[in-house]
Amino acid sequence: MKSQQLLLKMRPNGLPDEQTFEFRHVEAENLEQGELLLKTLYISVDPYMRGRMSNQDSYVEPFQIGEPLAGGIVAQVMESRVDDFKSGDIVRGNLPFQEYNTVKADNVSKVNTHGLSPSTALGVLGMPGLTAYFGMMHIGEPKKGETVVVSAAAGAVGQIAGQLAKQTGARVVGIVGSKEKADYITEKLGFDAAVEYKAGNLEAQLQKTCPNGIDVYYENVGGEIGDAIWPHLNNFARVPVCGAISSYNLKEEEVDLGPRVQQFLIKSRVKMQGFLVGDFAKDYKEAYKVLAEGVSAGKLIFEETIHEGFETIPKAFNGLFTGENIGKQLVKITEAE
Amino acid sequence: MKSQQLLLKMRPNGLPDEQTFEFRHVEAENLEQGELLLKTLYISVDPYMRGRMSNQDSYVEPFQIGEPLAGGIVAQVMESRVDDFKSGDIVRGNLPFQEYNTVKADNVSKVNTHGLSPSTALGVLGMPGLTAYFGMMHIGEPKKGETVVVSAAAGAVGQIAGQLAKQTGARVVGIVGSKEKADYITEKLGFDAAVEYKAGNLEAQLQKTCPNGIDVYYENVGGEIGDAIWPHLNNFARVPVCGAISSYNLKEEEVDLGPRVQQFLIKSRVKMQGFLVGDFAKDYKEAYKVLAEGVSAGKLIFEETIHEGFETIPKAFNGLFTGENIGKQLVKITEAE
Repeated sequence: MKSQQLLLKMRPNGLPDEQTFEFRHVEAENLEQGELLLKTLYISVDPYMRGRMSNQDSYVEPFQIGEPLAGGIVAQVMESRVDDFKSGDIVRGNLPFQEYNTVKADNVSKVNTHGLSPSTALGVLGMPGLTAYFGMMHIGEPKKGETVVVSAAAGAVGQIAGQLAKQTGARVVGIVGSKEKADYITEKLGFDAAVEYKAGNLEAQLQKTCPNGIDVYYENVGGEIGDAIWPHLNNFARVPVCGAISSYNLKEEEVDLGPRVQQFLIKSRVKMQGFLVGDFAKDYKEAYKVLAEGVSAGKLIFEETIHEGFETIPKAFNGLFTGENIGKQLVKITEAE
Repeated sequence: MKSQQLLLKMRPNGLPDEQTFEFRHVEAENLEQGELLLKTLYISVDPYMRGRMSNQDSYVEPFQIGEPLAGGIVAQVMESRVDDFKSGDIVRGNLPFQEYNTVKADNVSKVNTHGLSPSTALGVLGMPGLTAYFGMMHIGEPKKGETVVVSAAAGAVGQIAGQLAKQTGARVVGIVGSKEKADYITEKLGFDAAVEYKAGNLEAQLQKTCPNGIDVYYENVGGEIGDAIWPHLNNFARVPVCGAISSYNLKEEEVDLGPRVQQFLIKSRVKMQGFLVGDFAKDYKEAYKVLAEGVSAGKLIFEETIHEGFETIPKAFNGLFTGENIGKQLVKITEAE
């Protein structure tokens, strides 16, 4: 059986382009005992994958040239040689970007979609939801009456992080890149205010929307937005550092320079803390419970932007950096049976 | 009785110069009930005072033009109109820089010098010692076998911070500005290695002295030294941010730019935390006990660089930024009686 795959052809310098990726057709491998044949339903594209396309020291191994990209996938079991799995089961795993994967059962886990689309296992009930939860609740620790700012607030992580903060009784301000996203977070998600950074005068917008300063800044973007936040941090503010998407596509010759943070941290006694979702693995159960209950009760709203077809993966990936998506950016490969 | 005082004449732009300060003679005020007449013995000059000379938003009020500077002082009671104090007592307080001060008793506290010079109440058994203790032990939290780096390692805070880390079983590397200071921290204080940043090739020196990366970086200096540290931080490293002395004398038109930290913090899941010693006031007793016991047992070594005479205060203050002092920089005004 033929399976399309997406390879890394050449490491990008800046935003990936038509030189970066290559599609190829391969034969799906034969099943052995302990293995599953999976049909990919949804592929997750995430900003952190950009780091793996470079050959740099990071927290995950770089993708290898000529090898398939890999990432979050929701798939359906077509054939099982494992007792615990049967044909038709929906599973999730970190897998090569292929239409079909033959995997050891240890590499995937069954998905409870709570009656929702299986795509949610890559979004609100998956890595982005967990990332939002741990960064906000375990590092940000917002309190009633505090001001919380979330950047990339209409993105997969930001949309959940902001709503979780709101549920603590904090005032929540989202930073977004368009009027449409501003409307989404304030009208649909219940954020108290939005800052549209592309509309200019970020400083005046921050002063207007955060008149009492900022107690928690959930950092997803880095760059000039982070720079603008530091002077507004209140005493004992917390800054969970989840991402710095504005820096991921800098060219090799570009340096990511900004005002040094030390004096801001001292003056306001700020804690800035970088984290990866995997650091909280022992607490996943707690987080899944909160997220699933919130979604079931209609108290956690989320959007997905879904591209259709395996060949759209590069476009969907680049869209993360041009700001096209509202909520989780996904590629739908095929329907579940 | 005539008392000399040191005033702020003009806010400095860059390093203070002869335009910045003015000496004046005033009459010491008359004593009222509840007050003490104090004779200044030692004046502490500290880098944070530079911030108060500028008219900027900070954690302490700016000094006012035409008013005396103020800071840590050890003094002797000449006359007391308070039951709890008697003539001859040694006290400490945050007081105007004058030869004599008339103060309410609430503004000072009696000093237990543990048989040492009263000057130690401004150093190892004072604010710098406490600052070293809380930054290192409550935020840095070094563990046996970890690598700890301390910048300004031969300074008032650094010399203590490094020794406290060493006592936990960590490997301790100090960053200093001269061979003399390098010898001091390695030969006298027992640091495992020294980096002389003025000798050039900071990166190679860090690689050589920290082959296993850095688990705790006690930040006193900021600037290019901090920049050079970030790529060496290990997973789950801690960075107590105590000071950024390299930035304190930037001119108004100079911007303190460096590589943005977000990607380093994420990759290695680093916690950077600014602090002020006053945030730990409820735990001072614990810290004083450790410091006093360490000094008494000869396990906490310290130096003082002592200038003599009230008129040397400006020179002693500027010396903090030109790297002249080893250990605590002080001005001795007169002998205790």
